[in-house]
Amino acid sequence: MKILVVTPIVTEGLHMVEDFQHMVSPGTEVIHTTLDRGPASIESEFDEMLAVPGTVAKIMEGAQKGVDAAFIDCMGDPGLKAAREVVDIPVVGPCESSMHLAAMLGQKFSVVTVLDSVVPMFWNNAKVYGVAEKMASVRSVDIPVLDLHRDPDAMVKALVRDSVAAVREDGADVIIFGCTGMSGVVQKVQEGMEAAGVAGIPVIDPVETGLRLAELWVQCRLSHSKKTYPYPRRKEIRGYDFVPWGM
Amino acid sequence: MKILVVTPIVTEGLHMVEDFQHMVSPGTEVIHTTLDRGPASIESEFDEMLAVPGTVAKIMEGAQKGVDAAFIDCMGDPGLKAAREVVDIPVVGPCESSMHLAAMLGQKFSVVTVLDSVVPMFWNNAKVYGVAEKMASVRSVDIPVLDLHRDPDAMVKALVRDSVAAVREDGADVIIFGCTGMSGVVQKVQEGMEAAGVAGIPVIDPVETGLRLAELWVQCRLSHSKKTYPYPRRKEIRGYDFVPWGM
Amino acid sequence: MKILVVTPIVTEGLHMVEDFQHMVSPGTEVIHTTLDRGPASIESEFDEMLAVPGTVAKIMEGAQKGVDAAFIDCMGDPGLKAAREVVDIPVVGPCESSMHLAAMLGQKFSVVTVLDSVVPMFWNNAKVYGVAEKMASVRSVDIPVLDLHRDPDAMVKALVRDSVAAVREDGADVIIFGCTGMSGVVQKVQEGMEAAGVAGIPVIDPVETGLRLAELWVQCRLSHSKKTYPYPRRKEIRGYDFVPWGM
Amino acid sequence: MKILVVTPIVTEGLHMVEDFQHMVSPGTEVIHTTLDRGPASIESEFDEMLAVPGTVAKIMEGAQKGVDAAFIDCMGDPGLKAAREVVDIPVVGPCESSMHLAAMLGQKFSVVTVLDSVVPMFWNNAKVYGVAEKMASVRSVDIPVLDLHRDPDAMVKALVRDSVAAVREDGADVIIFGCTGMSGVVQKVQEGMEAAGVAGIPVIDPVETGLRLAELWVQCRLSHSKKTYPYPRRKEIRGYDFVPWGM
Amino acid sequence: MKILVVTPIVTEGLHMVEDFQHMVSPGTEVIHTTLDRGPASIESEFDEMLAVPGTVAKIMEGAQKGVDAAFIDCMGDPGLKAAREVVDIPVVGPCESSMHLAAMLGQKFSVVTVLDSVVPMFWNNAKVYGVAEKMASVRSVDIPVLDLHRDPDAMVKALVRDSVAAVREDGADVIIFGCTGMSGVVQKVQEGMEAAGVAGIPVIDPVETGLRLAELWVQCRLSHSKKTYPYPRRKEIRGYDFVPWGM
Amino acid sequence: MKILVVTPIVTEGLHMVEDFQHMVSPGTEVIHTTLDRGPASIESEFDEMLAVPGTVAKIMEGAQKGVDAAFIDCMGDPGLKAAREVVDIPVVGPCESSMHLAAMLGQKFSVVTVLDSVVPMFWNNAKVYGVAEKMASVRSVDIPVLDLHRDPDAMVKALVRDSVAAVREDGADVIIFGCTGMSGVVQKVQEGMEAAGVAGIPVIDPVETGLRLAELWVQCRLSHSKKTYPYPRRKEIRGYDFVPWGM
Repeated sequence: MKILVVTPIVTEGLHMVEDFQHMVSPGTEVIHTTLDRGPASIESEFDEMLAVPGTVAKIMEGAQKGVDAAFIDCMGDPGLKAAREVVDIPVVGPCESSMHLAAMLGQKFSVVTVLDSVVPMFWNNAKVYGVAEKMASVRSVDIPVLDLHRDPDAMVKALVRDSVAAVREDGADVIIFGCTGMSGVVQKVQEGMEAAGVAGIPVIDPVETGLRLAELWVQCRLSHSKKTYPYPRRKEIRGYDFVPWGM
Repeated sequence: MKILVVTPIVTEGLHMVEDFQHMVSPGTEVIHTTLDRGPASIESEFDEMLAVPGTVAKIMEGAQKGVDAAFIDCMGDPGLKAAREVVDIPVVGPCESSMHLAAMLGQKFSVVTVLDSVVPMFWNNAKVYGVAEKMASVRSVDIPVLDLHRDPDAMVKALVRDSVAAVREDGADVIIFGCTGMSGVVQKVQEGMEAAGVAGIPVIDPVETGLRLAELWVQCRLSHSKKTYPYPRRKEIRGYDFVPWGM
Repeated sequence: MKILVVTPIVTEGLHMVEDFQHMVSPGTEVIHTTLDRGPASIESEFDEMLAVPGTVAKIMEGAQKGVDAAFIDCMGDPGLKAAREVVDIPVVGPCESSMHLAAMLGQKFSVVTVLDSVVPMFWNNAKVYGVAEKMASVRSVDIPVLDLHRDPDAMVKALVRDSVAAVREDGADVIIFGCTGMSGVVQKVQEGMEAAGVAGIPVIDPVETGLRLAELWVQCRLSHSKKTYPYPRRKEIRGYDFVPWGM
Repeated sequence: MKILVVTPIVTEGLHMVEDFQHMVSPGTEVIHTTLDRGPASIESEFDEMLAVPGTVAKIMEGAQKGVDAAFIDCMGDPGLKAAREVVDIPVVGPCESSMHLAAMLGQKFSVVTVLDSVVPMFWNNAKVYGVAEKMASVRSVDIPVLDLHRDPDAMVKALVRDSVAAVREDGADVIIFGCTGMSGVVQKVQEGMEAAGVAGIPVIDPVETGLRLAELWVQCRLSHSKKTYPYPRRKEIRGYDFVPWGM
Repeated sequence: MKILVVTPIVTEGLHMVEDFQHMVSPGTEVIHTTLDRGPASIESEFDEMLAVPGTVAKIMEGAQKGVDAAFIDCMGDPGLKAAREVVDIPVVGPCESSMHLAAMLGQKFSVVTVLDSVVPMFWNNAKVYGVAEKMASVRSVDIPVLDLHRDPDAMVKALVRDSVAAVREDGADVIIFGCTGMSGVVQKVQEGMEAAGVAGIPVIDPVETGLRLAELWVQCRLSHSKKTYPYPRRKEIRGYDFVPWGM
Repeated sequence: MKILVVTPIVTEGLHMVEDFQHMVSPGTEVIHTTLDRGPASIESEFDEMLAVPGTVAKIMEGAQKGVDAAFIDCMGDPGLKAAREVVDIPVVGPCESSMHLAAMLGQKFSVVTVLDSVVPMFWNNAKVYGVAEKMASVRSVDIPVLDLHRDPDAMVKALVRDSVAAVREDGADVIIFGCTGMSGVVQKVQEGMEAAGVAGIPVIDPVETGLRLAELWVQCRLSHSKKTYPYPRRKEIRGYDFVPWGM
């Protein structure tokens, strides 16, 4: 099985194939790409719009080359719906998948994300995905995406602080990391939470759960509904090099 | 007062400035533009993503040149949220505005749009805009956008048929035209509905109500919340010619 | 265009025609009246019921005399639904209109009103109007309606305090004044909020937005649905001097 | 125990004390009154507003004379909230009480009422009372209130027809009569439904359940929250003969 | 009239028939039983599952012996739905009934229960019963069920503390005791709340309201819908001594 | 990895280990059991209550023996919450998991189940799981559980008929089989739907998706929140042979 991971930004080196390969089953191959056109990071609706065409292009390209599923490596799920219209393979967004998975693990979940500027986006996504009533809160650690890895200890400390607050003050039973740049520190955050007296709380790394869900769809021979996501009609497109497609 | 109307497609001639100028107050000037890059029409999430960057660019440009408000001439409200992040002037989307206005005129409203492919988009918008419980149904006349004007009588006939069905079968009290390409036929549709025995139903032309709402915001010195729509952070952008901006 | 403003209380001098005339377009004439029968102010469901028949009588009278629209100058929207049944012209309530307009300007809005006794009324209105999920909170400054103008500085100070709290503690992105007696101090309240470090928050004066919306309805030739608000059947009425009407 | 029943119309003879007395416990005395001022029947928001002040006056008078509870004999619950503000005794509305009671008897309930003109009123009440998601539908038999008793067989036949349709087409598990003028025919309607093949469906007579609920409140020494329904502040009232009151 | 009260635990002496008999009308006889099989108390989903078969067995037995209604003496409403399937007499759960009754008395209610472990159960029940939007909060006094009566003063003090907090911090207008073991102290709790400055708040003892509601159903000849609660199909059962039944 | 599958009925031979083993990854071992005590099949709340204690006992036993996850082989998810309280390993219910997975594949999903008697159970589960607004409808094929396999062709034909109706009449974009006894016929049903002109609709076999989700949880080292599902307190239990446990 081959899973295409699209990191929907033009910044290289933030995420590399090794960051994903250990999160999938033996026998699954991860193919990774960043964008040719798009923003350096995604922290606003404006950034997201710049990321979408490039992301969909990469997913179309991957589908044509025969990958079995695609994963969008950004919690805004940029291009998720558009990509599903143009391909048949499962396309997984970390936001949609982590929210539904979290909803199964406890009464309420909270998202701990990077900046206040993306908080409304999470609420809007939760409404569209149908899980808003299970979301206790969205908190932000106030660290820009590209700064997350400059001081990993500060990031973990901030994640612990806001996760503990989400549980104690907002009523969260489950925590979701609100940026794929936070991937890889679940264990450290849980240890920090336990040290602060908050144990037994599942912490979801949306990259890992998203990749595993992509495998699940392929294993079950399931993909999105073409009634919800019908193929776009062929028409003139100016300023983008998308090639036409059909049914 | 100057209002910029962005028809977010590359097709010229579908809408011209005369189509809008008679819908605003004397003293208000409409400035109209189509896109340099984008799709020929918007009938899918895929089309919409192609329209968004060009739309936001035109609105940024307009704001820099001093227009007082911007109107996006497409019921998908492409770029509405991203544009609000980068400009301070009111940005009006016909979908958001017609839904909230319709909600004030009756118990339930229905949207009659072009194709089945955009029905989920209306439901998702209604959820994000907070008016989903006031929406009775979304029906489609099954005519592509660019065909609407080829046979205006057929369009009116189809709008009458589906509007009557929305009232009788779905419980609608108010009708919204679900494509800005349907603008201009409210009176004919209402006459057709009355001929079919359905009178007293407001029919909303989202272009006219949207333009008038843009005027209202300017007259009241109101614009969107910068807490919901904060300025994007400055960062590298590749493949688009957006110039940076700041606070 | 002529807009009838009904201040639905028997207290004269609280609001005068000059308070409204500068809030409408040149060419629009405001006609103002208070009630012959009713309460001195509206701060409860009990007060509101006393205001409703007199308000509807004034609106019927106005419609017969040819006004183009009516505005009810009280945030309880007394008589809004009953008036719509008996007249064809648009009837605008400041509560319904400001809530839907606020919902378009940001993710969540809060109402800052006079007394705790009307807080449930705002929640019930929000439910009926279909925007409850967009309302962050209702706060009260604890000043009776008729005292608002005795110490305008105290009113502004209280509005600033509660508006800032609504933003910081309740998550509001937009503020609505919860009493039409607060009209006219938007700028002062916004300055106070900015001095307290809360900038970029739209503050809605429901009198101004309501009057402008009345103009919008007339300009767009739109009024309420007669399916939602059918004409009442003619029948005996005792103790009121309403004259019968028909279709 | 004494229960005051206010039939909130000026039409005498429609309901008499005998219609209620057999629906309460031995030892409970029903006191019945109609209004001095108000409409002949209630079939619109307009009619309802005319009924409210008279209804509240009668309930205040009853409370002063020492009745233990009050019941408003109309499915619009006219004056329910205002009356609760001015008295401490339980005030029961047949709409609120029958909806909550129906919600306990099955998955979904439907209301079968008189005319289409009151259908939105039921939906709005259901939203305010918090039970809208349990309401399957509101159907109307298309018979005005004052005609219900002219041809009781026709009324029963129509109630059977619409109740059966509510169960089969709308998914109702419980039926509520949507007008207090329909009181007394539960058994006949259930027999008719069974003859049509629809058995096991509870049919609620809101007069009987409302009177019994009034007894329940008194027996349990419970009444409405004065936090939700605080005493109105004393102020000038013109055109009504309400005497002031206080805390 | 005979009402069967099932205290769905194996602990005897916690509740006795005298605890219930004074809460019903003269002429109503209470028959009381505990379980032969089940847990000592119910404080978890695990405990509840152990209580359900024994509770339903007792209710079936009661129905066969001719009781007129059954009341389940535990706020988890164990066996409510299963029992309704196998009997025709009204079965009342204190949770369902107190929530709907509280919803009629004020804008929002809160539940004050025993332990944090049952808080999600109350939210889930409120969702299923359709009243979740009327519930302000669920608080727990942190006292296990069987300890409630060891120190009644401590229980009352804790109930006062959390009820006051529910009103002041969570916005409750009505309080429900969240464990039937708290029955009998409404007056003391209300006095304590008033001493803390919180007056006019109804406090519901779900045992008393539930018993009175059972009487109401019988008086009104109403019981649950057999469409929602159809008779189970006859089939093999192993490990339980339930005797078969039929339609 | 070892997954315990509990078929929560006493009927042997309906499901055997081979039915599950081919649905998991190589390297995962399925261990299968039926119940010692319980009903022959589950088609009511009554049946379900009889299944719960035995199901939880089997899951406790499995956890003590070291299985990595448990799957409950019944769409009522009997014992799901109680089991999660007493074990730390992931416990997967096919109803909860298929609903959340379906919600990701399209705008709306429908469940096609066995009998009308379990329809309310699906709606109640959807409310508790937080996905009710994504559920279009629940339809039943009117075939009892134990008859499903007597005539597999009739079952497939009925599933096709109701799935097509769910898509065309109820607006479903995704179908979920509403009984685990329907497992194994996804391909046939999809072929039948396509033959009826309904293509592109994902059909979910909740057994397969549930087993795969169990694997996902184990692979991601995730399990349910112990804040939502705390360990039950140790106490006397009569009539069941559950051995005590602790933290």
